[in-house]
Amino acid sequence: MAETAKTHNKLAALKRAWQDETLAPVTKRFPERRKRFTTSSDTIEVATVYTPEEWPGDPDPAQAAAYMEKLGLPGDYPFTRGVQPNLYRGRLWTMRQYAGFGSASESNQRYHYLIAQGQTGLSVAFDLPTQIGYDADHDFALGEVGKVGVSISSLADMRTLLAGIPLDKVSISMTINAPAAVLLAMVIAVAKETGVPVSQLRGTVQNDILKEYIARGTYIFPPGPSMRLITDLFRFCAAEVPKWNTISISGYHMREAGSTAVQEVAFTLANAIEYVQQAIDAGLDVDRFADQLSFFFNAHNNFLEEVAKFRAARRLWAKIMRERFGAQKAESWRLRFHTQTGGSTLTAQQPDNNVVRVTVQALSAVLGGTQSLHTNSRDEALALPTEKAVEIALRTQQILAYENGVGDVVDPLGGSYYIEWLTDEIERQAQAYIDRIDGMGGALRAVEEGFVQREIQEAAYQTQRAIESAEQVVVGVNRFQSDETAIPDLLRVDERVQTAQVEALARLRAARDNGAVQAILARIGQAASQPDAPLMPLLVEAVEAEATLGEICDTLRGVFGEYAPGNWV
Amino acid sequence: MAETAKTHNKLAALKRAWQDETLAPVTKRFPERRKRFTTSSDTIEVATVYTPEEWPGDPDPAQAAAYMEKLGLPGDYPFTRGVQPNLYRGRLWTMRQYAGFGSASESNQRYHYLIAQGQTGLSVAFDLPTQIGYDADHDFALGEVGKVGVSISSLADMRTLLAGIPLDKVSISMTINAPAAVLLAMVIAVAKETGVPVSQLRGTVQNDILKEYIARGTYIFPPGPSMRLITDLFRFCAAEVPKWNTISISGYHMREAGSTAVQEVAFTLANAIEYVQQAIDAGLDVDRFADQLSFFFNAHNNFLEEVAKFRAARRLWAKIMRERFGAQKAESWRLRFHTQTGGSTLTAQQPDNNVVRVTVQALSAVLGGTQSLHTNSRDEALALPTEKAVEIALRTQQILAYENGVGDVVDPLGGSYYIEWLTDEIERQAQAYIDRIDGMGGALRAVEEGFVQREIQEAAYQTQRAIESAEQVVVGVNRFQSDETAIPDLLRVDERVQTAQVEALARLRAARDNGAVQAILARIGQAASQPDAPLMPLLVEAVEAEATLGEICDTLRGVFGEYAPGNWV
Repeated sequence: MAETAKTHNKLAALKRAWQDETLAPVTKRFPERRKRFTTSSDTIEVATVYTPEEWPGDPDPAQAAAYMEKLGLPGDYPFTRGVQPNLYRGRLWTMRQYAGFGSASESNQRYHYLIAQGQTGLSVAFDLPTQIGYDADHDFALGEVGKVGVSISSLADMRTLLAGIPLDKVSISMTINAPAAVLLAMVIAVAKETGVPVSQLRGTVQNDILKEYIARGTYIFPPGPSMRLITDLFRFCAAEVPKWNTISISGYHMREAGSTAVQEVAFTLANAIEYVQQAIDAGLDVDRFADQLSFFFNAHNNFLEEVAKFRAARRLWAKIMRERFGAQKAESWRLRFHTQTGGSTLTAQQPDNNVVRVTVQALSAVLGGTQSLHTNSRDEALALPTEKAVEIALRTQQILAYENGVGDVVDPLGGSYYIEWLTDEIERQAQAYIDRIDGMGGALRAVEEGFVQREIQEAAYQTQRAIESAEQVVVGVNRFQSDETAIPDLLRVDERVQTAQVEALARLRAARDNGAVQAILARIGQAASQPDAPLMPLLVEAVEAEATLGEICDTLRGVFGEYAPGNWV
Repeated sequence: MAETAKTHNKLAALKRAWQDETLAPVTKRFPERRKRFTTSSDTIEVATVYTPEEWPGDPDPAQAAAYMEKLGLPGDYPFTRGVQPNLYRGRLWTMRQYAGFGSASESNQRYHYLIAQGQTGLSVAFDLPTQIGYDADHDFALGEVGKVGVSISSLADMRTLLAGIPLDKVSISMTINAPAAVLLAMVIAVAKETGVPVSQLRGTVQNDILKEYIARGTYIFPPGPSMRLITDLFRFCAAEVPKWNTISISGYHMREAGSTAVQEVAFTLANAIEYVQQAIDAGLDVDRFADQLSFFFNAHNNFLEEVAKFRAARRLWAKIMRERFGAQKAESWRLRFHTQTGGSTLTAQQPDNNVVRVTVQALSAVLGGTQSLHTNSRDEALALPTEKAVEIALRTQQILAYENGVGDVVDPLGGSYYIEWLTDEIERQAQAYIDRIDGMGGALRAVEEGFVQREIQEAAYQTQRAIESAEQVVVGVNRFQSDETAIPDLLRVDERVQTAQVEALARLRAARDNGAVQAILARIGQAASQPDAPLMPLLVEAVEAEATLGEICDTLRGVFGEYAPGNWV
């Protein structure tokens, strides 16, 4: 960066301090991807980050102060410009394609394929029975085993699922909510068996029950016990699995259900506030668990709004953690997030158009500073993605990372008058929602009263009307249609998966020590009936004794009851 | 936009003046695409453009002055933020897919297909014989007729090519250089036949011979007569065809040959300076012809560098026209440009990846404020594009235009610290090249001495080495390869096109008044041998008399001679 004469300037001094104290220690410890970052021209070398100093003349002191308050520098509060000082110059975002179908063994093969293609993290999709805590041989599972994800009923299944995956190197994200604790217990058991220290395990459980009540629907227990399970998992992981993300607080599904970008930020952070408050109320120290919270957002169509949305969410969360909850550690203020491109934007018509949509959406996530990214496959509006379609989706990320130079400068759109205005505006409107929800007594109450659901439904209805009137154009659907309707190769899940899973469970139940299973299930039931008893250590014991997911969840159902909409406790 | 108390601020006053005097007259006369522009949220209404006023506090007067000098407001000097005050809020960029192959009739069908798919302008690709001024029945044309574009030898062919196209509504861009004047004469003749006033014709001839000597290779005449033909066309069109772009000064092919972004800007504007200087030297008033000059750039891989490149080119050209050439009219200062995504970035391997590349490149052109855009088809690294591939390419533009909201705010990245730094840097380095070329006596001399060619070759060599060592990653080529090599459907040109064209020319030569043809060719020869005699009116007469392209060019070859590399006059 050109040297200037503005040495008396406060911003210049702050930037120098940042270079010495924040950036240098990181680049010293972790070498960057390149020695020099240049554009297409070797004569243009680009710096880590650009600031108002690039402007000629001296920034007005009030404006420099406003810059530091609103934007700051990457890796520093309020993290508007990113949670790491050099972001993708150090390490690219994690390329993490959500995948899973059929049996544990088929899914394991897909993961090995993805890793061979250059994917850098795993993301496990579970089938519906697993997500709502039923074994593959339960009546409720009929016709659903292995359909929308992999079927996991026992530790044996988890062993197969993770076979050959180095658990200390590849992070494992699991889209599991109501029974998150049980699935995490299985991963811990596999790690112990394979000699990976539990303290080194890296990954995520989604574990976000509030958005299940709002938008996604795979709940088991009523809110009270659900929140207790979440807090219990926070406590356990803070002590035992410190590198694990204990929750992925998700705006994704609310956006898919039709929320606006503002609502996505507002309701996600309102839910996050609820989780943090409940954990604090249960006696946890905010700085012990806050750095294990992670987030999950949608990358939708309005390109620049999405970039601004990610930045607004980071700034808002930093303020909430520091000012509202009084967190002291910088790690507690950081909003780290996974992004998935917007599935509901994809069309069954002209499926190749989806490659275009996904590219623009993925680019917004990268410019917005995401930590990991799933790019949807072009056939996801039609079926589970084929290997070919998954390959293109992954290549999309690799092209952004390796050909387009968009990771070479941190927060490259920072300072854009429009982006900064929009970041402020999204923050302001999201804060107004959070204030309203606070006024109702918090997110749990707002969900109970149906407020969040109604707001999303209203936004979804407006969008639907705009699409029906073609005021909002969907290319290939309400404009620019074409006759072609050649359906590409679709992936079908083999119906024999269910039979095989049922047989395997029968063998398991015959071979294991059923007395030991009954004993640990009884202990779980007893602990569950005491308000404060720790559950996670018992769950690990249970899966190690080969108790199944369904058996454990049934035990908890016996104590906690089941949630039905309107059935709040 | 929020009202602020900064009414004493000079920038605020300038912006109000711009709203009243620049923006309002345009929006009053041409309604915008929507009454309100919003993001995904109806509660966020976006303004035409955002400026430093969005920042809290008063901008420092020196900084406000720097803003006005460097950026200004859209539609105002120096046009960094765009050549129109409301850009795509009024009318979207022209979606113009370069197409042409086989016979005039086949190409005409493809144009009607493209218009039916929503394309808004035509772009004609000519075959090699046409580009170098030979009829389809010439020995040199053997095996090349209709191959890389359409074969046009006579007015009859042009009639067929444009059949059913409303010439007063659809603009026609023609990639033709050495014989540009002859092809334009044919369009004029067709317009006259079909009752379209010549003064209403809209379109472009590429007509940029300097970059042919540098990079593209379809020249005919030596530089002196070539420059005379160009100046002659400028003069004629200023008087008779005022809505026609008389030249498309092209960086595209130099970039394809391996130049950097800086070189693309520098050498394109250096060539432009040469054309303007020659026209002024020939006695033309700069303000009479300057508003008919247009430009043609590449949209390459480094996403943000490309956005900055377009902005830097606009600012640099405005300064050149105003300060160097003393142009008085705002229309003379405006750099209007067509963009094509970078063909050389496409790969034969994993052709679907090209859809991703093209999307990112196209987005950079839109964020950079292009006036028209060609998006390459995914199979262009393999063959002429199929209809299916062309459809996806056009859909890419439509998704950007109608789904991604990127046309709703003018210059939305303006103010970004990185983008502004990079815009300045590209301008600075390009200006340094222009200064060097001035020192050599201008672009014509610099090309003659091989300077421009050597600079591009050196940059291309560096890139080639970086790719060979895999320091520069090309996804699917030197990293992330896959086994799959299923070649998609390819378009092959029917060999019978040549036979049909040869037969049609034989019939034409038998049926026409050959005495009249010889008479007009003789008059052209005579005019060409006088340094200042106007040529365009004679060319129109000649094509109307059914003289062929080859006959006219042969007549000029007889007087002007032919160019061979090293053969400068």
